[in-house]
Amino acid sequence: MQLKPGALPECPCAATVETVGEWWSILILRDAMLGFTRFDQFQRSLGIAPNMLARRLKHLSATGIFERRLYSTRPARYEYLLTEKGRDFFPVIAAMVAWGNRYLAADGPALLLADRASGRALDPLLVDSASLQPIDADTAMAVAGPRASSQMRQRLATVAALRSKSSPVE
Amino acid sequence: MQLKPGALPECPCAATVETVGEWWSILILRDAMLGFTRFDQFQRSLGIAPNMLARRLKHLSATGIFERRLYSTRPARYEYLLTEKGRDFFPVIAAMVAWGNRYLAADGPALLLADRASGRALDPLLVDSASLQPIDADTAMAVAGPRASSQMRQRLATVAALRSKSSPVE
Repeated sequence: MQLKPGALPECPCAATVETVGEWWSILILRDAMLGFTRFDQFQRSLGIAPNMLARRLKHLSATGIFERRLYSTRPARYEYLLTEKGRDFFPVIAAMVAWGNRYLAADGPALLLADRASGRALDPLLVDSASLQPIDADTAMAVAGPRASSQMRQRLATVAALRSKSSPVE
Repeated sequence: MQLKPGALPECPCAATVETVGEWWSILILRDAMLGFTRFDQFQRSLGIAPNMLARRLKHLSATGIFERRLYSTRPARYEYLLTEKGRDFFPVIAAMVAWGNRYLAADGPALLLADRASGRALDPLLVDSASLQPIDADTAMAVAGPRASSQMRQRLATVAALRSKSSPVE
């Protein structure tokens, strides 16, 4: 996806959106996390047009999310293995699974995450790695990192001003 | 986004993708988490075409992610406030921020998450809420939930078979 300049590509969320590229990629990554590696597995799972799937797999390989490996020479066929960068996308997928189960599965979940070793169901929660305290929209804020441009600093200052304006008077 | 039948809309990840709808929505939600509520704030931040932004805001309101509130009557103007459902999308955004900072910010991060009260930087980590153990692609698997269709059960059985085939012999 092409971002407009105003979308500030230095924003790590915007950069992620731009790198992963489009919605289909999320479902391809979901399937890759499940264990699919081959073109026909992704195709059957997603019902996606072959040229579209080929384009997405090429893009995700070029950005280092998949590593392409030849598994058959006649005809030449490749499988797509998640790199560490690809595997580390797991929290995004898991957070989507958790949100979907919470808000979009009124009749109960059709899919759950479980621990591979014990089979016990897992309930994903985002915490701070140091304190293990939950992180949520009410307790977290965005601050400028060391490489923030002046445009980014300005945006975050605007946001901080909005926040202090809307805070209840103590 | 319209999913193909093969994409199994009962999958909570696919349902999330379908509900949120498209990539712009992620950036709109990012901005809403930052504190933006008004059309012109989103527009200035994203550089998105007004008709596209209006469509996304309408969709996100219809799906219960935003609540629309009149803040001016002449002319009538609305602001868009995140509902609980919307605020609970935060882990998806935060996981994207963490991934972007880890893999796409070679020169260092331009934006970090921090605790509102203390200002301390936060390092998002996905754990199981009961055990507080990290959840990742290597230790988690997907299992059928109580509402899984036979198609979903079949898919998960295929995946389990792939997994056992690729496991090292013990």
